[in-house]
Amino acid sequence: MMIVIMDAQATMKEKSAVIARAESLGFKIHLSDGKERTIIGIIGDKRDLDKEQIERMPGVERVVPVLKPFKVASREFKPEDTAFSIGEHTVGGKDLIIMAGPCSVESRSQIIETAHAVKEAGAHVLRGGAFKPRSSPYAFQGMGEEGLKYLAEAREETGLPIITEVMEPALVPLVCDYADILQIGARNMQNYALLHAVGKSQHPVLLKRGMSSFIEEWLMCAEYILSHGNTRVMLCERGIRTFEKYTRNTFDINAIAVAKHMSHLPVIADPSHATGKWEYVAPAAKAAVAAGADGIIVEVHPRPDEALSDGLQSLKPEKFAKLVEDLKRIATAVDRHVPE
Amino acid sequence: MMIVIMDAQATMKEKSAVIARAESLGFKIHLSDGKERTIIGIIGDKRDLDKEQIERMPGVERVVPVLKPFKVASREFKPEDTAFSIGEHTVGGKDLIIMAGPCSVESRSQIIETAHAVKEAGAHVLRGGAFKPRSSPYAFQGMGEEGLKYLAEAREETGLPIITEVMEPALVPLVCDYADILQIGARNMQNYALLHAVGKSQHPVLLKRGMSSFIEEWLMCAEYILSHGNTRVMLCERGIRTFEKYTRNTFDINAIAVAKHMSHLPVIADPSHATGKWEYVAPAAKAAVAAGADGIIVEVHPRPDEALSDGLQSLKPEKFAKLVEDLKRIATAVDRHVPE
Amino acid sequence: MMIVIMDAQATMKEKSAVIARAESLGFKIHLSDGKERTIIGIIGDKRDLDKEQIERMPGVERVVPVLKPFKVASREFKPEDTAFSIGEHTVGGKDLIIMAGPCSVESRSQIIETAHAVKEAGAHVLRGGAFKPRSSPYAFQGMGEEGLKYLAEAREETGLPIITEVMEPALVPLVCDYADILQIGARNMQNYALLHAVGKSQHPVLLKRGMSSFIEEWLMCAEYILSHGNTRVMLCERGIRTFEKYTRNTFDINAIAVAKHMSHLPVIADPSHATGKWEYVAPAAKAAVAAGADGIIVEVHPRPDEALSDGLQSLKPEKFAKLVEDLKRIATAVDRHVPE
Amino acid sequence: MMIVIMDAQATMKEKSAVIARAESLGFKIHLSDGKERTIIGIIGDKRDLDKEQIERMPGVERVVPVLKPFKVASREFKPEDTAFSIGEHTVGGKDLIIMAGPCSVESRSQIIETAHAVKEAGAHVLRGGAFKPRSSPYAFQGMGEEGLKYLAEAREETGLPIITEVMEPALVPLVCDYADILQIGARNMQNYALLHAVGKSQHPVLLKRGMSSFIEEWLMCAEYILSHGNTRVMLCERGIRTFEKYTRNTFDINAIAVAKHMSHLPVIADPSHATGKWEYVAPAAKAAVAAGADGIIVEVHPRPDEALSDGLQSLKPEKFAKLVEDLKRIATAVDRHVPE
Repeated sequence: MMIVIMDAQATMKEKSAVIARAESLGFKIHLSDGKERTIIGIIGDKRDLDKEQIERMPGVERVVPVLKPFKVASREFKPEDTAFSIGEHTVGGKDLIIMAGPCSVESRSQIIETAHAVKEAGAHVLRGGAFKPRSSPYAFQGMGEEGLKYLAEAREETGLPIITEVMEPALVPLVCDYADILQIGARNMQNYALLHAVGKSQHPVLLKRGMSSFIEEWLMCAEYILSHGNTRVMLCERGIRTFEKYTRNTFDINAIAVAKHMSHLPVIADPSHATGKWEYVAPAAKAAVAAGADGIIVEVHPRPDEALSDGLQSLKPEKFAKLVEDLKRIATAVDRHVPE
Repeated sequence: MMIVIMDAQATMKEKSAVIARAESLGFKIHLSDGKERTIIGIIGDKRDLDKEQIERMPGVERVVPVLKPFKVASREFKPEDTAFSIGEHTVGGKDLIIMAGPCSVESRSQIIETAHAVKEAGAHVLRGGAFKPRSSPYAFQGMGEEGLKYLAEAREETGLPIITEVMEPALVPLVCDYADILQIGARNMQNYALLHAVGKSQHPVLLKRGMSSFIEEWLMCAEYILSHGNTRVMLCERGIRTFEKYTRNTFDINAIAVAKHMSHLPVIADPSHATGKWEYVAPAAKAAVAAGADGIIVEVHPRPDEALSDGLQSLKPEKFAKLVEDLKRIATAVDRHVPE
Repeated sequence: MMIVIMDAQATMKEKSAVIARAESLGFKIHLSDGKERTIIGIIGDKRDLDKEQIERMPGVERVVPVLKPFKVASREFKPEDTAFSIGEHTVGGKDLIIMAGPCSVESRSQIIETAHAVKEAGAHVLRGGAFKPRSSPYAFQGMGEEGLKYLAEAREETGLPIITEVMEPALVPLVCDYADILQIGARNMQNYALLHAVGKSQHPVLLKRGMSSFIEEWLMCAEYILSHGNTRVMLCERGIRTFEKYTRNTFDINAIAVAKHMSHLPVIADPSHATGKWEYVAPAAKAAVAAGADGIIVEVHPRPDEALSDGLQSLKPEKFAKLVEDLKRIATAVDRHVPE
Repeated sequence: MMIVIMDAQATMKEKSAVIARAESLGFKIHLSDGKERTIIGIIGDKRDLDKEQIERMPGVERVVPVLKPFKVASREFKPEDTAFSIGEHTVGGKDLIIMAGPCSVESRSQIIETAHAVKEAGAHVLRGGAFKPRSSPYAFQGMGEEGLKYLAEAREETGLPIITEVMEPALVPLVCDYADILQIGARNMQNYALLHAVGKSQHPVLLKRGMSSFIEEWLMCAEYILSHGNTRVMLCERGIRTFEKYTRNTFDINAIAVAKHMSHLPVIADPSHATGKWEYVAPAAKAAVAAGADGIIVEVHPRPDEALSDGLQSLKPEKFAKLVEDLKRIATAVDRHVPE
């Protein structure tokens, strides 16, 4: 269903061509022929008519789609919240889920030490990168499978389910062998081959928003995963790139409420990337919970100044423990609950 | 104090010229002559050496200022929070100040009805525009002085102090005759003649951040006002313009904590403009308080669908009353307090 | 004329209310009642129906305006290009107009020396700031009226008409006494009191685009000036603020062709601010002419490294002379002409 | 080599720790102990010291890297322009290379018809997508290998080398079997696994800038490819995402001159994506050549209104032929040459 606004100078022939095209595709037409403009309504429930196919016809000024381009991800398709289990807890319901851990797995002892620390502080999921997207080819790229093994050991020791990033389709089976949740990073949000691969895997997925993605594009990427019948998708707002440069990214706090309004999927916030500086992680995390996030994912490192990546935005375990306490108070104030 | 990074190809003569220039201005030099680059430190406490005067000298690659360009507005200048009275309450302390009212004053009865409604719901200050900046010259431009008179009447009836926008230097005395707080709108943040005028007025000022202003520029504009000895300045984050177009603006929630970190001035959040849609005003307001805002300013209209401006982002009084209750809970969770 | 898209859940009562509202304002209705959505076309030629007044009614999902909000500035209103005299030349026709001079007037000798230099190199108009908008209250703010006098002297000596910025309504009469063209700076694009004042002055105006203004907003600001019957308005693209930080601004080269497509007004490009670094001024200026600009305004300073403002982006006279030669070649390649 | 600016409150112990860390990594130290700030210069030629490792140490305010993070891609590494053969022509030298063709290969006859048309009009390379990144999983995703075969047929018939996009590492060998140049799309600019794969392939690569990538990040992605010894890399500016929404993207014309200044690699402009509307493709293409681009890549479709993707921004062959004539004139005006 879309609305076609014709040019002021559009000819009868051009108008007829648009109508003929739409009718030939099985749509109904609703014509409004005004003094200043002719408006053509194209009516039908097929979502796959490409707006552009009409927009580029001669005499067309612009086309306004009436329906959202995503379907399975939308509230209209599924009005009630999606909730599913992550370890012993449920994401997308009343509980607030806290994921924490280092940016990168750097050694067996580092990840196991951190896992114990975040568990004790109250985290429900352990994060840690084994494959790292780095802007420089000369920077540390992660420990790879060895890192996955250490994560699995940390899970065994603490009982925390693990989330880790997967960066290429060929590695999805390997990462699925170890991880409880697959993370798609912001740079790969529109890596469609990867989205298909994680969709097929049927593993729970945390889909980070691309750093300059419209909310609608983000939901369309969720749709890629959902289209394979993999319904356990979490959206993750992690800050967008704007003109402001004091913080690493601009935390789009509005996006949390908007995503929950447009979609039934759980929304997680990443205050570490959204700010890029540890001093601002706590206020951002509290804001996210107040705005309705279903969980947060935070970088925690026992010795941030020795971290091999992103230490600048990592909390020390004691600051993280304090943050969890603060989040419990905020959660209560918005009728949510941080499970023990 | 600044650091000059010379080009790899800079000549001895070019380096000497930079040094001579800085020394002639009374600065000391600290030279670091490396294999790949020469670095010249320019040391001295005068903040008025223009970075660009050095940057444009031949052989200079770039100049890094070490100190912030603002002074009186900075935490370094005044480490403790600035707090001052607004009516019976204090902004910048433990109290959370709530300002509410319609976008525009539309009639005597409208503003008086709204004043009573927001007071009853718990607001501490009444907002209402008498002079309106509108993108179209053909749109309603506000009631002018008549609107100011109705605001003053509303204050008399309810006891609420009033805040209203002033848009040009010539009108500052008139607006001061009626208003308790002057508002500088986002479009006028860098209207320096206006900043000088409100600085001289010695009236409390709420300074909205420009829609694409760096946080540093915003503080520099506060500096314009403070430079006249007018210390009662509140900063107001009202959303920035980014690529995302689903919401009217992107609420830069990070800016609240950053501004409070860099400056001692109180920070107010405007969730109405920061989202542009009433459905998202409540989550944004709650997030702002969780992030550490000292107050919020919200648009409330008894019949938003009849408002002459910005009705789309206005709350009805009953929704506003609910929001105040919610904010009380969040305030408590961050050790703040909404005064009765 | 606008199109109203109702919510999927909108009730009959809500639909009727929208229709009744529009009809009560004298509009005709065109109803399209689909299975998934109801669409209401509101038809009539009054441009002053506020989109928001409808958008905020219950049950309305969104409103799509069919017509542009500006009128006198639009090509629909006046299909042929606007052209008018600037000194001995005409802007908006086949000629390419070149304006050049220092960011600020710094002394009598500096502006007169520069005026001779840019005239010799081929400039048609002399630029120079007497009142300077500066981000810091402690920076050089311009020479004021003294600067205007020196500009007038430079005009007398060289015959070049002068353009200079005016920053506040109260100073418009003074600046008109000296200047041939008034410049509205980017920070003041939406300073409506100032737009009204320059509109009333009937002086030619160069209106710089605000650094985060939509092209439509820029044209609406031109409309403010035009609404006073002052038709001699030039639009000036000077770069917008984006995430990219290597250049001072991002030169929106598309905006030149778009503004000329939407409006009949001449479009001038400012490659100095659009890049912020003198090395990139020449490629940007050439690109602007190739894209269809009617003129350029460039910063030239005899000794950029001694300039009191914006020296970093200023060309030396010999580089400017070379640029004028290059622009002549580009102008010929796009069937334009740089007058001698 | 980097400069460390310590906090005003940094302790002696914190300063010593930074110095000790840098010295332990084999760097030399240059200390500047001022009244307001201590500055520590870290000197040495290893580019792999992570700025963040220092930045996150206690007492550090910020770290300023002196050298660019990319090496092989930089002008410092290789001052002279990189030029290499594409079919019978050379990109990166005096010649201006024109690549043209449809967004997608849609059928054998469509691509062959277009190939003949663009060749006749003066193109040197045929473009056409066989694997298409689409925001919707329900949209046409390209013809896949069949499309590659038709492209190869078109090359055989016309002699034009072909460029086509590759979207996943696993498909690099297949695409190399058919294509002369591999294209990395904007969405995949930071798909590092893909960059490694095309680097290893030793095929010429056109690397599109990500839609919100800093110029430096773009060059770092080129560095990924170059690090495999694949030196035939072209950079492609295709517009960035900004607040302006009238055009599909904002064409960052400055980036052309900046990339050529920072790097020795050829820079190609894509005016089709940079504007998104065919009316603006010609001015953008002309601007790109005037600004110094080494070539352009343009979408051409025999019947844009029937195109399966991006028809809105496609030129008809006759408009493209006119554009080539116009570009020849601009090329001459900037001492370049469009080879026959």
